[in-house]
Amino acid sequence: MKYSKLFGKTVKEVSQEIKLVSHKLLYQAGFIRESVAGRYYFLPLGIKVRDNIVRIVEDEMDKAGGQKMITPVLHPIELWEETNRTNSVGFELMSIEDQRGARFALGGTAEEMMVDLVRKFNVSYKDLPFNIYQFSQKFRDELRARGGLLRVREFLMKDAYSFHATEEDFKDEYQKMWNTYSAIFSRVGLDTVPIESDNGYIGGDYCHEFVVESEVGESRYLMTEDKSYAAHEEVAEFKLEDMNSDEKQLPLEVKDAPRGPTIKDGVKLYDQPAWRQIKTIVYVADEDEKILASLRGDLDINEVKLKHVLKCDQLRPATEEEIKKLGSIVGFVSPLKLKIRKIGDPSLKTVVNFYTGADEHQKDTLNVNYERDFTVDILADIALPPEGCKTKDGKKLIEGRGIEVGNIFQLGTHYSSKMSGAMFTDQDGKEKPFYMGCYGIGVGRTMATVVEVHSDENGIIWPKSITPYQVHLISIKGAEKEADDLYEKLQEAGISVLYDDRDERPGSKFKDADLIGIPLRIVISTRTLEGKNVEWKERNLAESKNVKIDNLVDNIKKFYELS
Amino acid sequence: MKYSKLFGKTVKEVSQEIKLVSHKLLYQAGFIRESVAGRYYFLPLGIKVRDNIVRIVEDEMDKAGGQKMITPVLHPIELWEETNRTNSVGFELMSIEDQRGARFALGGTAEEMMVDLVRKFNVSYKDLPFNIYQFSQKFRDELRARGGLLRVREFLMKDAYSFHATEEDFKDEYQKMWNTYSAIFSRVGLDTVPIESDNGYIGGDYCHEFVVESEVGESRYLMTEDKSYAAHEEVAEFKLEDMNSDEKQLPLEVKDAPRGPTIKDGVKLYDQPAWRQIKTIVYVADEDEKILASLRGDLDINEVKLKHVLKCDQLRPATEEEIKKLGSIVGFVSPLKLKIRKIGDPSLKTVVNFYTGADEHQKDTLNVNYERDFTVDILADIALPPEGCKTKDGKKLIEGRGIEVGNIFQLGTHYSSKMSGAMFTDQDGKEKPFYMGCYGIGVGRTMATVVEVHSDENGIIWPKSITPYQVHLISIKGAEKEADDLYEKLQEAGISVLYDDRDERPGSKFKDADLIGIPLRIVISTRTLEGKNVEWKERNLAESKNVKIDNLVDNIKKFYELS
Repeated sequence: MKYSKLFGKTVKEVSQEIKLVSHKLLYQAGFIRESVAGRYYFLPLGIKVRDNIVRIVEDEMDKAGGQKMITPVLHPIELWEETNRTNSVGFELMSIEDQRGARFALGGTAEEMMVDLVRKFNVSYKDLPFNIYQFSQKFRDELRARGGLLRVREFLMKDAYSFHATEEDFKDEYQKMWNTYSAIFSRVGLDTVPIESDNGYIGGDYCHEFVVESEVGESRYLMTEDKSYAAHEEVAEFKLEDMNSDEKQLPLEVKDAPRGPTIKDGVKLYDQPAWRQIKTIVYVADEDEKILASLRGDLDINEVKLKHVLKCDQLRPATEEEIKKLGSIVGFVSPLKLKIRKIGDPSLKTVVNFYTGADEHQKDTLNVNYERDFTVDILADIALPPEGCKTKDGKKLIEGRGIEVGNIFQLGTHYSSKMSGAMFTDQDGKEKPFYMGCYGIGVGRTMATVVEVHSDENGIIWPKSITPYQVHLISIKGAEKEADDLYEKLQEAGISVLYDDRDERPGSKFKDADLIGIPLRIVISTRTLEGKNVEWKERNLAESKNVKIDNLVDNIKKFYELS
Repeated sequence: MKYSKLFGKTVKEVSQEIKLVSHKLLYQAGFIRESVAGRYYFLPLGIKVRDNIVRIVEDEMDKAGGQKMITPVLHPIELWEETNRTNSVGFELMSIEDQRGARFALGGTAEEMMVDLVRKFNVSYKDLPFNIYQFSQKFRDELRARGGLLRVREFLMKDAYSFHATEEDFKDEYQKMWNTYSAIFSRVGLDTVPIESDNGYIGGDYCHEFVVESEVGESRYLMTEDKSYAAHEEVAEFKLEDMNSDEKQLPLEVKDAPRGPTIKDGVKLYDQPAWRQIKTIVYVADEDEKILASLRGDLDINEVKLKHVLKCDQLRPATEEEIKKLGSIVGFVSPLKLKIRKIGDPSLKTVVNFYTGADEHQKDTLNVNYERDFTVDILADIALPPEGCKTKDGKKLIEGRGIEVGNIFQLGTHYSSKMSGAMFTDQDGKEKPFYMGCYGIGVGRTMATVVEVHSDENGIIWPKSITPYQVHLISIKGAEKEADDLYEKLQEAGISVLYDDRDERPGSKFKDADLIGIPLRIVISTRTLEGKNVEWKERNLAESKNVKIDNLVDNIKKFYELS
């Protein structure tokens, strides 16, 4: 490709509003352009990288036995109603009506579409398992889009769905997809950590995010140094230490407590550590159920865990007014008196003689002990892991931050049991619901993450596997003819070349080459021609060297490991 | 791929409602499945064919200098308003609002999106020309969808847009795309005829449809035997013969006419051929303009041509009531009296002494002559070509019917002049609007057309270039192990294989193979093994032959012209 005719050249100025490195570089180097916030054009350079990623994903999915196919973008809304996801999805679903009055969801994920397709066939256990996947445009009606490709409103996603006769068979597939994902990300130049995470709007019992460590990521997780345990902060489990098990239980006592409503206010008044208190929050779940959640005062409630325990879709803290109506008061709510459903964290069992509010303004109850003085309806882990916490077997947990580039989900019969007829005929002649899993990769986000990881102050440094072109050829004044010839020669040898044939200053051409980030830059000038050389410069090395023109093709093939 | 594990196997029964051959076969053989009317899943076999077509289109577009990219699916509606296409598009545009209140069109075609993108750059004449294209999902809110992939509500389209500094440069590109399209369709196994056609909702001055002759096509066209002239019936030009130029003009005469309102009624009353009459129809254009269209009585009005002449978006015949209000009456309207804008067809000049209505019930005017007795505001071709008509230079025109698989459009400055800032800086430093063209191919429709053309009573016969697999391997009981080995061996040689490894009757496997339509079927059985052979059967030949297993790979490579 001659750069003079390439559509989408480099841009000098960048708006101050562009913050993320990947956004800035992909924009400036001519890979992407915004249409409106969260919706991007992929320019000719950008689509080449995206296609390369797609090819790698496709190759690894096929190797793992995946079968590519595609669903329509518009999903009949009735299917989403069948699984009740029109109410519960975590992203706003976009929907549209056609002129005949049929309503459709714009594809967000495609579980319903795939199950609906599969149930149109008479599937026997002999046909199982299969894993069908697609690359298709997905839509999320996000209120806020981040700059660039990291969080968008429309994007290409590889989404795969596997169908099994048994859980055991599914587990093999889950492991296979785990390995496939590691292989895919490694091929595109990313180190990923699979972390346990929340299944959100997808459903099912467990899932893993594939995360690339990055300061700009939105996923916060905890991990042991040896990476044997890694989990999203929303689901991470940690060890609860007994705080004062040698203390004796003292009798209950209610007394005046001239303090403010916070845990800190209590610490100040009693001059005791935060763990001495019970933290209690009243929530309103789904339609209107009031529930009470309690845990040790030094810990924070993890609303994701709490929602799972409650099996609810919506959750919000109660208002002052609502708490008053229940017969308590903000800052002095206790798990002792209120007659609503109570959820307690196991940390309530790690302290002897808690103090807590007495459900009256500025009155506290002292020496409160779990089981002796109160119990809860459900005792379950609802805590966010605190700083410095350890795994259940005592290993140190380090906090990490990263970008989620893919995820794999166990679905079990979550969809197949809700959608009628989503059954196969088993060996015994009986109809059974499919056991399922699903597996997603955001292609654009993967591309942006590569740039976050592989770039320097001058621009992008593409991994060889996904570079838009293999060679960035630059001609310097006086060597135009030789550059033209070399351009032809390299292409004839099957090497893809971006050829900067413009009549521009060398400095400006070099700058553009660094910005665009092709791994190998070849410069040809009257000076290099004197020694029948070209200048060979690898994007990730500071030094350049001379290479004989006659050996160039071989060297490039070696560099790219082409046969 | 082992057929036992393929998702989307053949189907025995077909609904009576499935009429089109391509619909029936693609459904039955497991290439596509309907989601809801007009929206299709492409199953694993189907996506392979579609991908093969995509690859061929991409290859030829790239060879012609096209640059692939992609736009978002959701187009800001403001762009379509800028060109006034929210009102004038020929298909119903689907639109959707996001939760922040922004409205978007679901991409139908992408002229506005591409122009909007290009105007974000500072384009100089040096950057021109370029041709940018994409493969993306398109939406049409059709009231009626046909069965299968021929007319759908959602489909993958290759749409290309070229930007030029001058009309001359565009003309070169138009010819290049013409050749590219011929090459693409020829490679996928289709003979196309480029026919002049109406530009419909796209705009511009001229365009060509690439049509594959077929009884089930929706395009009707006229063509000379040597194909030197071919045009859609909506735009076809034809020779007007003088009917009675030797007659003398007689004086005007109004007389009672006890006849009905049709041309036939006139023929009956006067016992004269239809061409003796003037056919006049009152239309209502756009908001509320009444116009009068007249032509020779043996011809019919071509509303597409008429809309172009009027440069209007909407056109409908006036009601009885509206005609009365104007001071005339249905069946007796003439171009002589009414004081509204008049459009006349040149056929009005081919008859001496017409008769026509006298704008009163059962009164006619005789001996009406164009120019002597009336003229029109616009004299322009507004006639449908009649049966047996000839080209302007006297060649016979044959009527044809076919499927439109692609089209190429001159756009000129139709979009760039309407969208502000759609300019480039020319050599003289002045800003000028882009001169444009656009070029579309429906990928799914192309696939269905191939099936319409390449199939027999037993199933599909895929052209080698787009077959989902190169070999359909069938094992017969007793030769399973050898078949497994051969499957591995062929794949290692880089040959793609669909391997029917099921424990089924040979007859049923052969039937499925014929239905699926892979060009080459290889059968291995204990009988063929006796001579160290396999059975080689080409899908389009009746006879099979034996081929030595040892020579099989070479033979297959020769068959597919693989190196």
